[in-house]
Amino acid sequence: MGDQARRVVTLLTDFGLSDPFVGIMKGVILGINPHAVIVDLCHGGKAYEPSEAAFALITAYRYFPQGTIHVAVIDPGVGGPRRPILVTCDDHLFIGPDNGLLAPLAEKAGSSGVRAITATRYFLHPVSATFHGRDVFAPVAGHLSLGAKPAEFGVPIDDYVRLALPRATLSGTSLIKGEILHIDRFGNLVTNVTRTDLEHLAAGDFPMTFFVRIAGQEVPVVAYYGQVAPAAPGAVIGSTDYLEIFVNHGDASRLLGAGRGSGVVVGMKDAGDRG
Amino acid sequence: MGDQARRVVTLLTDFGLSDPFVGIMKGVILGINPHAVIVDLCHGGKAYEPSEAAFALITAYRYFPQGTIHVAVIDPGVGGPRRPILVTCDDHLFIGPDNGLLAPLAEKAGSSGVRAITATRYFLHPVSATFHGRDVFAPVAGHLSLGAKPAEFGVPIDDYVRLALPRATLSGTSLIKGEILHIDRFGNLVTNVTRTDLEHLAAGDFPMTFFVRIAGQEVPVVAYYGQVAPAAPGAVIGSTDYLEIFVNHGDASRLLGAGRGSGVVVGMKDAGDRG
Amino acid sequence: MGDQARRVVTLLTDFGLSDPFVGIMKGVILGINPHAVIVDLCHGGKAYEPSEAAFALITAYRYFPQGTIHVAVIDPGVGGPRRPILVTCDDHLFIGPDNGLLAPLAEKAGSSGVRAITATRYFLHPVSATFHGRDVFAPVAGHLSLGAKPAEFGVPIDDYVRLALPRATLSGTSLIKGEILHIDRFGNLVTNVTRTDLEHLAAGDFPMTFFVRIAGQEVPVVAYYGQVAPAAPGAVIGSTDYLEIFVNHGDASRLLGAGRGSGVVVGMKDAGDRG
Repeated sequence: MGDQARRVVTLLTDFGLSDPFVGIMKGVILGINPHAVIVDLCHGGKAYEPSEAAFALITAYRYFPQGTIHVAVIDPGVGGPRRPILVTCDDHLFIGPDNGLLAPLAEKAGSSGVRAITATRYFLHPVSATFHGRDVFAPVAGHLSLGAKPAEFGVPIDDYVRLALPRATLSGTSLIKGEILHIDRFGNLVTNVTRTDLEHLAAGDFPMTFFVRIAGQEVPVVAYYGQVAPAAPGAVIGSTDYLEIFVNHGDASRLLGAGRGSGVVVGMKDAGDRG
Repeated sequence: MGDQARRVVTLLTDFGLSDPFVGIMKGVILGINPHAVIVDLCHGGKAYEPSEAAFALITAYRYFPQGTIHVAVIDPGVGGPRRPILVTCDDHLFIGPDNGLLAPLAEKAGSSGVRAITATRYFLHPVSATFHGRDVFAPVAGHLSLGAKPAEFGVPIDDYVRLALPRATLSGTSLIKGEILHIDRFGNLVTNVTRTDLEHLAAGDFPMTFFVRIAGQEVPVVAYYGQVAPAAPGAVIGSTDYLEIFVNHGDASRLLGAGRGSGVVVGMKDAGDRG
Repeated sequence: MGDQARRVVTLLTDFGLSDPFVGIMKGVILGINPHAVIVDLCHGGKAYEPSEAAFALITAYRYFPQGTIHVAVIDPGVGGPRRPILVTCDDHLFIGPDNGLLAPLAEKAGSSGVRAITATRYFLHPVSATFHGRDVFAPVAGHLSLGAKPAEFGVPIDDYVRLALPRATLSGTSLIKGEILHIDRFGNLVTNVTRTDLEHLAAGDFPMTFFVRIAGQEVPVVAYYGQVAPAAPGAVIGSTDYLEIFVNHGDASRLLGAGRGSGVVVGMKDAGDRG
């Protein structure tokens, strides 16, 4: 076999693993390209929440080999008028429904990086009304993994559905206001405040001089989880360079009573304007 | 390597992923055939429910390449007198316990398509009393994937355990009575009423002229989820050609208070005999 | 490709599958060795419990091909002073944090079988403070799977963190006192009483002459689940040669009100000293 056929295909869905949906998608892909290397990215995402999956995808894709094909199916509008799209970005390929899920990547890809998938000859027929993961996205991924070019699937579009992940903002000269984007499986609260935001705030003493306020509590910014006592809260620059709030050996979401969309404020210690 | 060895092996179990059971089965298969391509079909099935898994398997297998070996282990009778069986159907191979799980496929396979697996030389010894997924089914799958023939594993039998999935029936000339076979991860209620059942009822105006009654409510049959308002119920021909009842952006099982075995009635609008 | 590159790499984490953590680790491994065969061992382990994962690992690894690389990441101390270690045992390789998770294997490996991983040139840089699965363990696994030797990653150490799984003890001449080590997905209670312990107790009439006392109840030791009535409790030698307590077609943990650490007593019927 040519090593070309050994392309990695990742799957991100909200299908869970108690139904055979994800397995069926793999069967379709392997039927087209027996040498595809299929990797589960995640499958337990909250049903019907494209924005949370968009965040997962944009922080994860770069850890896969160049040329990887990422299939993302959070698709409450399946069967209706929403289009399937294909995004080319950083030498990775992304396919999924046009509902915002791929919007941050489309934004990054820029003009001519986003196509509507219209080449129905690549689909599984008859196309069902409820499972385009099987009938549209899996077969398109299979053919892409065999070397079909993006241009074979449809023309570039510019009117894809936008989805802007909320950004942290500077408030005055010494406070950052942000919010919680994601709660991970440990209950850690991932904010939209980035390492770069913090660096702008305080060129210099990094990162021990910051504090974070969330849900009426002030928590210290530390270098790693173990720097606070067990059961105590803290904040740390997480693995994707976003500030995240944790409870050492505990569940921050539950213990702090905060969730997606909760506001956070980051400031510098001894800065005098904590109000 | 010969491409023969790259056979797909699927695994359907009720083992979940928090124990190493599924991983161990994969280790055993790869120890026998390092080139096997192993795919998880599903693992969160309800413990001890062969009939629900049978439904998943019969709707899923055809999306895998011909020659695929499907291993199904929902096995509350493990260690006791129940036999392991091997079914050959549509150029797919199926192995699992003889408890009904493979019965719909055995039915389809017809005479000489079902064998009792008795060739203990293929098993892992000593065979445990609690984990035949590891000691019987995984090694048999491994050897099948290397090209061993079904006849090497045992002789055809006809007295396998039957399991008839309940069928929808015609009531009078204009009503179909069916029931819920499966609730999927989104709370969708998959019925045993098929597209063919509906076509028989109304050759012609398809599918907008039907209604479905479930749990005291009447819901419209539509072409895709988005044709009803968010939070409203509807019914749609699902991806496996069974009618399924949904709530747009919601959980139909919870919102309609219906579950496995709940009755459904399908009729035609303006047919006059809705009683 | 050389078949050498087709090494099996297993992953055991407490990351679950609703976040992309496990998928990202696979991306990193495949970026280093596109021919690695990656297998999920388990991912739903209780967060922050190295000892339960240690038990899973030591009972599972031997079912994988020799030369398999096992990556275990239950890592509440990530980012702090705890070291990453590499254990060579029985021609299998194990990598993970030095927090007890690999201790039973290290014990078995003996002197020079345990190394601190210090060769930072193999890591992904910058190394994050929260995700060494991605930045340390996955890349080390990738390079090991390509043939890098353990000695290239660091020197042998003897001061790794010990973790002794509690052992069953003989009480008098006819009773074994043990405890529950693990509750599996079905609610079965896996004890630390082994087949060997039972054989010592009663050379001869095996296994029908034993009884088990747990949570104030006496349950019979049988050869397989189906030997007790549905909903009745029993005990059986499980698939890893540990005695386990079950309820036929039910959840023993819930029905007996027992959990991790609950005591069990095993004796012989008619032995006269059941006190």
